[in-house]
Amino acid sequence: MSAEDAVKPVTISYIAETAGVSVPTVSKVINGRSGVAADTRARVEALITQYGYRKSSPAQRSNLMELVVDELEHQWGVEIIRGVQEVVREHRIGLVLTEFGPERSTIRYWIDDTIARRPDCIVTVAQLSESEQNQLRARGIPFVVLDPGSELPDDVPYVGATNWNGGRSATRHLIGLGHRDIAVIGGPDQLFCQARLDGHRSALQSAGLPVHDDDVARAPLTAEGGHEAALRLLRRSGRPTAIFAGNDLQAVGVYRAARTLGLRVPADLSVVGFDDLPIATMIDPPLTTVRQPLTEMAMAATELALALGRGETATQTGIELATRLIVRESTAPPVVGRD
Amino acid sequence: MSAEDAVKPVTISYIAETAGVSVPTVSKVINGRSGVAADTRARVEALITQYGYRKSSPAQRSNLMELVVDELEHQWGVEIIRGVQEVVREHRIGLVLTEFGPERSTIRYWIDDTIARRPDCIVTVAQLSESEQNQLRARGIPFVVLDPGSELPDDVPYVGATNWNGGRSATRHLIGLGHRDIAVIGGPDQLFCQARLDGHRSALQSAGLPVHDDDVARAPLTAEGGHEAALRLLRRSGRPTAIFAGNDLQAVGVYRAARTLGLRVPADLSVVGFDDLPIATMIDPPLTTVRQPLTEMAMAATELALALGRGETATQTGIELATRLIVRESTAPPVVGRD
Repeated sequence: MSAEDAVKPVTISYIAETAGVSVPTVSKVINGRSGVAADTRARVEALITQYGYRKSSPAQRSNLMELVVDELEHQWGVEIIRGVQEVVREHRIGLVLTEFGPERSTIRYWIDDTIARRPDCIVTVAQLSESEQNQLRARGIPFVVLDPGSELPDDVPYVGATNWNGGRSATRHLIGLGHRDIAVIGGPDQLFCQARLDGHRSALQSAGLPVHDDDVARAPLTAEGGHEAALRLLRRSGRPTAIFAGNDLQAVGVYRAARTLGLRVPADLSVVGFDDLPIATMIDPPLTTVRQPLTEMAMAATELALALGRGETATQTGIELATRLIVRESTAPPVVGRD
Repeated sequence: MSAEDAVKPVTISYIAETAGVSVPTVSKVINGRSGVAADTRARVEALITQYGYRKSSPAQRSNLMELVVDELEHQWGVEIIRGVQEVVREHRIGLVLTEFGPERSTIRYWIDDTIARRPDCIVTVAQLSESEQNQLRARGIPFVVLDPGSELPDDVPYVGATNWNGGRSATRHLIGLGHRDIAVIGGPDQLFCQARLDGHRSALQSAGLPVHDDDVARAPLTAEGGHEAALRLLRRSGRPTAIFAGNDLQAVGVYRAARTLGLRVPADLSVVGFDDLPIATMIDPPLTTVRQPLTEMAMAATELALALGRGETATQTGIELATRLIVRESTAPPVVGRD
């Protein structure tokens, strides 16, 4: 997206010459029109990406931007859409929303239709394939990754949250209350989950507490995932006095597991979540959790994407917005500790 | 939207002649271009609406449809978007999502931008103004109202839920358990809330039970609304043994009020919600509620709108999808009754 920073843009005829094709063929690729063989298209795109070609006059603005998600989740979907909407309203831009749905792999037409719509920019929560990214770069359609789940190349702009700090603050809070045996439920193998887990470990180590392997569970970021993981953690001998869940939904599952086992929250078990979604205040007791500013993240990603779409260069390719611990009623000093 | 069923379409020159303007002026209005005085525009639109003019060849398809909402709510927003997405994916249509946000009145540009985008059709949860509706009709952009909150003209297609039946089934369930003093929290003054309330009353009357005025509260469809209304209902002498809340969020507030007053759900108080959103199974005890098929409603509205956009005529301008009582653990026979 900031290829033009690194390499001086070249002309369309230079790309045509290098690829061994005609100028109209390159033009067809750039403008997403049909009538170009797949391998020629790929070769031209690779060159465009390599040389950072961009139209000298900015492409006609469509006044549309796209938000792409894998699957909308009840608890965070609306937070993100609201943030994007707040910004597009201000800029008077139409928002095209694409949810790939459960069968992501079948949605092969997305990139073609998106190129045909010529959005000014894209914000994506979904992971785009290498080929999709290259096609967007080749057409000069900038994209910003929101809450990246995996490692990104250095030049891909993104907006995330300080997940490591968040994990650390959750466990520091529990340690501060006097807990010594704190279990954690990690999520799937995504960057933000790893960062939370590492923040948790870091807090334990800073306090001189050991990290027990059997205090770490992994589970999907759902209530069911939290429920099953918590049952495993709480049924072993010398059960933990506190659980730091991977997100608020897992925390709902931890509550359920505690009820099943006749444990009271927070008297017998302290629980901390992550996200601070509306559910956190609707359950009993209200959940202590790490607030992730999803709406603000979506706003920042949208502003950044729109700026790139206007041809501005980003001063910063990636930013993380601060998380914050929100203490409610699900955490208390432990009655029984192991130490 | 089926104006063409009622009246034979007229020509653009006939409308120009009748309005006392040139053919290009009428064309400008139809195509949403500028350069027409506001009063002339309104006069031409009124005639177009009256005579049911539609382009003889269908307008070029944009392969976009629009979903319009006032404010996305956490609990139902995702249900509706998911339903729309499922259908647009199948038809390979792009979805433009507009949330008017808290300051609806300031979003005056929406209709202009929408006309400029030329969507094939619109599904709206928001209430469109008379003028907006006329402008859409004049451009042959069909719209379907999803979950209408107020009375609609006969020719406006809509998809709703059987709210009256749902209200009736909730209260019949409570009566069947032996409850005799059943309070209800009505929502705001919207059609679907009135229908739920009337269904409740109908169930009481069918069972030969009186409808006490002080058993009916009105409150916004939020947890706070439910909390305050429930406190009022439960603090009076001879408190009700059951509360039928206006929706699941209100039911969350009723749980909270019960806790405040030291009442157990369902031992001391039975609670029924409405919607069956994910929150219903996350609270303790899991909530008995009336399932409203929001995703299916959104799918039906989208299919209908797309069909109208293809120039098909609707066999049915309005449909209501069935609600269904889902019995969970928040309802039980009363321990103490007034009768």
